[in-house]
Amino acid sequence: MKRSRIRIRRDAFRHRHRPAGATGKSKKSTGPVLLVGSVETCPDLEYASGFRAPDPVVFLRTREKDVLVVPPLEFGRALRRRKAIEVLTPERVGVPAGKRRQMSEWVTRLLRREGIRRVGVPSTFPHGIAVRVERAGVRVRVLEGDVFPERAVKSAEEVRKISAAQQAAVIAMRAAVNVVAQSTVDANGYLRIRGARLTVEHLRETIAKALLDQHCFCREPIVAAGAAAADPHEAGTGPLRAREAIVVDIFPQHLEYGYWGDLTRTVARGAPSPAIRRMYHAVRAAQTAALGCVRAGVACRTVHRAAADEFSRRGFATRTQDGRPEGFIHGTGHGVGLSIHESPSVSQNETRLRSGHVITVEPGLYYPGVGGVRIEDTVVVTSTGWRYLAPCEKRFEV
Amino acid sequence: MKRSRIRIRRDAFRHRHRPAGATGKSKKSTGPVLLVGSVETCPDLEYASGFRAPDPVVFLRTREKDVLVVPPLEFGRALRRRKAIEVLTPERVGVPAGKRRQMSEWVTRLLRREGIRRVGVPSTFPHGIAVRVERAGVRVRVLEGDVFPERAVKSAEEVRKISAAQQAAVIAMRAAVNVVAQSTVDANGYLRIRGARLTVEHLRETIAKALLDQHCFCREPIVAAGAAAADPHEAGTGPLRAREAIVVDIFPQHLEYGYWGDLTRTVARGAPSPAIRRMYHAVRAAQTAALGCVRAGVACRTVHRAAADEFSRRGFATRTQDGRPEGFIHGTGHGVGLSIHESPSVSQNETRLRSGHVITVEPGLYYPGVGGVRIEDTVVVTSTGWRYLAPCEKRFEV
Repeated sequence: MKRSRIRIRRDAFRHRHRPAGATGKSKKSTGPVLLVGSVETCPDLEYASGFRAPDPVVFLRTREKDVLVVPPLEFGRALRRRKAIEVLTPERVGVPAGKRRQMSEWVTRLLRREGIRRVGVPSTFPHGIAVRVERAGVRVRVLEGDVFPERAVKSAEEVRKISAAQQAAVIAMRAAVNVVAQSTVDANGYLRIRGARLTVEHLRETIAKALLDQHCFCREPIVAAGAAAADPHEAGTGPLRAREAIVVDIFPQHLEYGYWGDLTRTVARGAPSPAIRRMYHAVRAAQTAALGCVRAGVACRTVHRAAADEFSRRGFATRTQDGRPEGFIHGTGHGVGLSIHESPSVSQNETRLRSGHVITVEPGLYYPGVGGVRIEDTVVVTSTGWRYLAPCEKRFEV
Repeated sequence: MKRSRIRIRRDAFRHRHRPAGATGKSKKSTGPVLLVGSVETCPDLEYASGFRAPDPVVFLRTREKDVLVVPPLEFGRALRRRKAIEVLTPERVGVPAGKRRQMSEWVTRLLRREGIRRVGVPSTFPHGIAVRVERAGVRVRVLEGDVFPERAVKSAEEVRKISAAQQAAVIAMRAAVNVVAQSTVDANGYLRIRGARLTVEHLRETIAKALLDQHCFCREPIVAAGAAAADPHEAGTGPLRAREAIVVDIFPQHLEYGYWGDLTRTVARGAPSPAIRRMYHAVRAAQTAALGCVRAGVACRTVHRAAADEFSRRGFATRTQDGRPEGFIHGTGHGVGLSIHESPSVSQNETRLRSGHVITVEPGLYYPGVGGVRIEDTVVVTSTGWRYLAPCEKRFEV
């Protein structure tokens, strides 16, 4: 998935970026950290507790221990998931029977039980609960940046789980590209498959079914062709034509593991215009240049600059024309894990890559009236370079 | 999906329930309302703006108008979606170039531009942004209960969209039940299909594929059999056996419309025990009794009592045994719309049903060591009664 999304998604709730020169290590105070949310709203909670909570739960990390408060029906399941954590129910933290549906009561009772007078919360913490906690005499401090900066560095187990999602993306990509490759071209230049026009919707269905077979799901894979692909947010619609660049961006979540993968290829059925072909070769070269810089210790902006410089060298300008940005209009990549977009952001910043970072490298070019090209792989950073999580061939004309 | 989930999901962030006697109409002050979020984190935002925001956006409703602030790349798409709304970008609300990634800047600049000094926000509003807004001199008030109580009353267009998701659930249910019906029973009492044991996972895959064909998705349909079904939170796993009650709960979201459906059936391959059969007939009767009370003007608790009384009359007690709740341990239903669980809660409360409410009616019985039974339909409330959104036959022994 392209980087423009990321920036908004990941940074939307940040107040300040990590200071220049930060290495990605925690700069946080070591006070207690409080989280409230479900697997859908708070991936940090799953990361810290090892528990996938379908309904909102409360998590507290103090210097001494981790505590999880879950609904009574989840108690047994939560106990089984993780050993090094204290699992409680609202009843056990002393919430009176009439107030068991009020999550703010879960929180205030837990904090009182643990004797805590100050907590750090993420920026996304529910304001209504924060207000109640403060009213109960506990000071709530908003933590800047990532709550658990160490989340960006993946364990071998996490890499394995992200790889499963990435491998599913590869399988789905091959299925989609094969359909394009097997299509014929009618007199009007439209692609046809099994007697009907090949549409974006058809490709999206092919992708969804292939992912499902791998226990993965991607809500809306991007299949954007021709002029529409000039907008990296365009999910695409309608019939596909020959000689157009078709951007296929598949970002599945593994339904069991909860980890994501991210993969983009750009393909064309029949020879595209020289302009599009030049763009494709530039994007390939930019990805190669960026990957060539990836290794532990390198600043993210070095990787981003490598891609940007390759575009400049080839004469592809990034600028705003008639109020619309064009060229290399997004960052080079982003972290992938329990969120599709997480730290580190591989863009114009000083964050240094670390072994175990899992990042996308996805340069792209977008020119209104011409089209768009993006190529994206997800890799794990090592001390000497990087490794594909799941390699996938790069074919342009199919 | 069973009601126990709902209560947590929907009410988790509420501080107080609607006052007794409330009719579901807005009791709110008419001050400006501020929302921040994406389609995933804030369905109210989609409801109010008509815009499905993949990335977080800002929405402001004042007495005079609605305003939406979206990332530059979303500007054209947001403009096309809805006419009666002012669409802006961070640049247009005056966010300086270096701060365009800070959503708190989007908010404070917008409020300043509109001359607003006090706003209401939902309890789930990001605390980090609320703190910044208050620091900018704007008073932030947490709105109790639903931000838009009118959201519970669906338009004809919304009913059509929920019906599409519900119809998909019906198609998927039939596919799953057919697989059970076509299975054979081996010497050990296990169900077999096409030469292999029939598993929960197989049924879940059948459901997922049928839903996908209808442009719908359900992350984890519940397929819980035998003793496991006694826990309504149990998603189920492993091989299925003859003569067990199998609870199948399908709650898909329509991938295009964003609206949800919700449907549960309980089936058995081969004659189940008399105990389970009595439970099934009680649940059927309880659903019939509850549905018999549904019409505009009736209090939710009247509907809930009708189901509960039917169980009592038949000798099915609801109580806590050895610390574990058993019997009719959840509410009778919940609203369905842009959230799978929304107002009104059909439980022990005074909220009165209104024409256009879309609710589930899903009584169930759960006894550890015996099993669980639940039957659920989603209906729209009318002035004279109710209507199925998509009828689905109720077969027990298949």
